[in-house]
Amino acid sequence: MQLEFLGTGSGQPSKFRNVTSIALRLLDERNAVWLFDVGEATQHQILKTTLRPRKVEKIFISHLHGDHIFGLPGFLSSRSFQGANKNEPLTIYGPKGVEEFVETSLRVSETRLSYPVVYVEIQEGVIFEDSTFKVIAAKMRHRITSWGFRVEEKDHPGELLVEKLRDLNVPSGPVFGQLKAGKRVTLSDGRTLDGADFIGEAQKGRVVTFILDTRPNDNIATLAYQADVLVHESTYGASEEEAKMAKAHAHSTSVNAANVARRAHVDKLILTHLSARYIGPMVKSLISDVRRIFPNTMVARDLDIVDIPLRKVSEKGTKKK
Amino acid sequence: MQLEFLGTGSGQPSKFRNVTSIALRLLDERNAVWLFDVGEATQHQILKTTLRPRKVEKIFISHLHGDHIFGLPGFLSSRSFQGANKNEPLTIYGPKGVEEFVETSLRVSETRLSYPVVYVEIQEGVIFEDSTFKVIAAKMRHRITSWGFRVEEKDHPGELLVEKLRDLNVPSGPVFGQLKAGKRVTLSDGRTLDGADFIGEAQKGRVVTFILDTRPNDNIATLAYQADVLVHESTYGASEEEAKMAKAHAHSTSVNAANVARRAHVDKLILTHLSARYIGPMVKSLISDVRRIFPNTMVARDLDIVDIPLRKVSEKGTKKK
Ligand SMILES: [Zn+2]
Ligand SMILES: [Zn+2]
Repeated sequence: MQLEFLGTGSGQPSKFRNVTSIALRLLDERNAVWLFDVGEATQHQILKTTLRPRKVEKIFISHLHGDHIFGLPGFLSSRSFQGANKNEPLTIYGPKGVEEFVETSLRVSETRLSYPVVYVEIQEGVIFEDSTFKVIAAKMRHRITSWGFRVEEKDHPGELLVEKLRDLNVPSGPVFGQLKAGKRVTLSDGRTLDGADFIGEAQKGRVVTFILDTRPNDNIATLAYQADVLVHESTYGASEEEAKMAKAHAHSTSVNAANVARRAHVDKLILTHLSARYIGPMVKSLISDVRRIFPNTMVARDLDIVDIPLRKVSEKGTKKK
Repeated sequence: MQLEFLGTGSGQPSKFRNVTSIALRLLDERNAVWLFDVGEATQHQILKTTLRPRKVEKIFISHLHGDHIFGLPGFLSSRSFQGANKNEPLTIYGPKGVEEFVETSLRVSETRLSYPVVYVEIQEGVIFEDSTFKVIAAKMRHRITSWGFRVEEKDHPGELLVEKLRDLNVPSGPVFGQLKAGKRVTLSDGRTLDGADFIGEAQKGRVVTFILDTRPNDNIATLAYQADVLVHESTYGASEEEAKMAKAHAHSTSVNAANVARRAHVDKLILTHLSARYIGPMVKSLISDVRRIFPNTMVARDLDIVDIPLRKVSEKGTKKK
């Protein structure tokens, strides 16, 4: 599981930061990629990565401002051009309106996609769940309807400790399956084994929270609670003047993000959706301001890849900050 | 007057060629820039140039395929963000449909532009004319309605030869204006002067023709007749197989473009809308094939700037090919 930042700027593209898109790479987990927001030229950014549009199975749209959706028609067209077929559907979760925008764009341009698109209008709560992942949406507070997302991976059950069984001369066979299922099994030689003794430690499912355009609000800490990674917008910096601007434009400051990261006990905070001003020394001072409040913070740059490692259940919460 | 190629690829962006947009720089002529097509990430390309979105007063859309229009909402938004005001309107000439696409994009994204947009649905013939320029549209033949454009600059009248009048000791005053207007004037000392003898040679207005997505058709030569520059799509190359592909997809080959350039007696041919395959040696062979038919040909690359010089009337048609 990795995050790949395709665009880390706010409002309009600049030379060093494209407008928002974030890929959640789930190639090992489900041979798929999810996108969070698709600003203009997201497909251009993808050209600079190893991502393949066909692998994108879900897109989550936080809100309908142009810097978060204007790349959708082009991305969808290129996914078609690059050979996605009718068995490779794509689901777009977003506020009402995303369907009208996309469908109008495709109809006017007479673009016929080679695969089906499914639209899901976001409602508060669980918006997706299957055997390995769950996605929860909660309302943010921006100038228009905006959603935050919590992506929860389900726990990985422990592996059967085959070596330990071999050491005890337990012959492989259906017994292995029964032990793995946690059952007590009596062997033909009379010994009784308890599955619980032969299953390794479970690995905790990871949690990634995405908070795009919003002013501070109570739902953020709920969505981010004990997340492995909190990706949080930081349109404005730490100064008082910036705080005023953030309020006026219904955005967050770096300090807002750090405070909620601490309150929600997340492991790592990644700031994105930055003003074009944040390059070079400005980034350094932004980081040092924030680390005073929440040490394990990074500021995303375009094309950064961040790995999110699996951890044993017993390690949970003990990771160095 | 210069051309600046913002995107020279076909269909979808590639690493070296963005999708179509061409800027006609008319800064000396009218302190303005015109865009021909606005594919996705045109605003990103503009960031790499000295062009200022505020200066863009007109946009001409050849047809509604995504690679020619998906950059419009983002470009219009950034033009607003960068401070264009209500006295800096922008006119979009295009097929019916461009208004629906743009207005839906702006409405869904709740984008309120700071300047007015005027839509003109293209009809065959003169679509714009003022004291310095005229634009003529003619139907092309593509899979959907597509238009070619001929931009005609009006002739620059000759300048008054002030030095020659000084040599003859003609005192400056209203007489100068009358001579410049071509009148015969009798001076107070009895001499009679003919304005025609004191006006320099006129400079010919320049002509630039834009032929985007189309199969060969009779309107192209008409639009391109004696143009200073013919910009012509060249989605396919010179081979027989490519010619078949061009036919199947209602596009042109490099050979089609060269043939019409010769037939229309243009000065210079610039090929654009190329497949992503055309980089490095492929471009070289493309050019050499075409130059056998029409020597003064170039293949546009992204961000190329091509100057179109003024010429005296008497030089017209004598420029080296
Ligand atoms: Zn935004
Ligand atoms: Zn095209």
